[in-house]
Amino acid sequence: MTLSMLWKETGPVWARPPPLRNPPSPNPNIPPAIYPVQGPRFVATHTFTDAPPLDILFVPGGGGNRALHENNDTVIEDFIASRFDELQYVLSVCTGAATLAKSGVLAGRRATTNKATWNWTTQFGDGKVEWVPTARWTEDGKVWTSSGVAAGIDMTYAFFRKFLDPALVDLVMNVMEYSPHTDKHWDPYSVVHDVPGADQGRPLGDCVGPVGYKFKCTGEDAMAA
Amino acid sequence: MTLSMLWKETGPVWARPPPLRNPPSPNPNIPPAIYPVQGPRFVATHTFTDAPPLDILFVPGGGGNRALHENNDTVIEDFIASRFDELQYVLSVCTGAATLAKSGVLAGRRATTNKATWNWTTQFGDGKVEWVPTARWTEDGKVWTSSGVAAGIDMTYAFFRKFLDPALVDLVMNVMEYSPHTDKHWDPYSVVHDVPGADQGRPLGDCVGPVGYKFKCTGEDAMAA
Repeated sequence: MTLSMLWKETGPVWARPPPLRNPPSPNPNIPPAIYPVQGPRFVATHTFTDAPPLDILFVPGGGGNRALHENNDTVIEDFIASRFDELQYVLSVCTGAATLAKSGVLAGRRATTNKATWNWTTQFGDGKVEWVPTARWTEDGKVWTSSGVAAGIDMTYAFFRKFLDPALVDLVMNVMEYSPHTDKHWDPYSVVHDVPGADQGRPLGDCVGPVGYKFKCTGEDAMAA
Repeated sequence: MTLSMLWKETGPVWARPPPLRNPPSPNPNIPPAIYPVQGPRFVATHTFTDAPPLDILFVPGGGGNRALHENNDTVIEDFIASRFDELQYVLSVCTGAATLAKSGVLAGRRATTNKATWNWTTQFGDGKVEWVPTARWTEDGKVWTSSGVAAGIDMTYAFFRKFLDPALVDLVMNVMEYSPHTDKHWDPYSVVHDVPGADQGRPLGDCVGPVGYKFKCTGEDAMAA
């Protein structure tokens, strides 16, 4: 397995998004100190121009694609559109679905996105996307999309389990000590964030534990509202 | 909040650990293709020599500290020992607890670590560490330690919730769509990985959901063994 990390230039890239042209007013509930003055930097191995052939493309979200949109910068969408036919799979996390929608590859497909930014993301796709309001992740042919960032872990677990030895993937999960959500229809965040059309009847809680083991939960209410 | 990332040199650092001097035999259950030929690279902002004053030190684990140990390289332990008095808090994830133990700062304290690597990590500390076999994370004064990598997310949630506005931290969690484990004593992985002294009586499953909301789980067995 070879990992390529793509950006306009190779070398260090700030995880912190560039400033918005029209930044929203600061949230009065969030003290300035929690906004980091910087973030970690990752290293891009290739540019969108010299990227090698790819089998799987993983499209993250976050403030970055919102900033690109505000600047009318479609470099990622153009790359996705040009490579989509050669890809075996494309997966998105959070607002990465907005980038997929803008690239055109969600036309006629089911997709989901972060429920806290639902209205922003679902404006894209020219009305041709079937946005699924209650879903931790969706699978539609070669396109998988997930909700907020943690949902991306669960989607990735389901994805790898489908294509690699499930016992091996389970071993990795239990060494990571991650207890995945395995039901892609479980989505309390569609209720938390008041997504239009959210299924209010699905349980907000989920019983999770180590994969491959038999476990049960207490059934007690776990937390006061 | 200012983030500093430390290593021997500034600039890009492979997330993939250096090769072990005495590598274990390849696991016959893991096909070679799943071992990535490389990993992502992060950018170190400071060295252990020129690091600024720090309030909180976060010590990760993984194959890297095992490789350092094999090479008798104590650069991280020496740094922790020299800075421990000035720190308000030090937190470890996974085998980062081995590094803490070797630095001496766990003497007389309770600590935990990844349950899959229990025997390796708990050999350190000169018998002065109270290693807790069943714990998702531990808190002992200014030292917090967590189990496998995903347990670090739960420890970090509990840590921030203690020192920042809880409503704000909960908001961030619900935007991340992460449903945390909030009971530091819940630890099915001590059973999964046969840790000596593990409490077999604690439930393997956990009922989780969005923070700040009332939820319950079904109580049905969730998965066959």
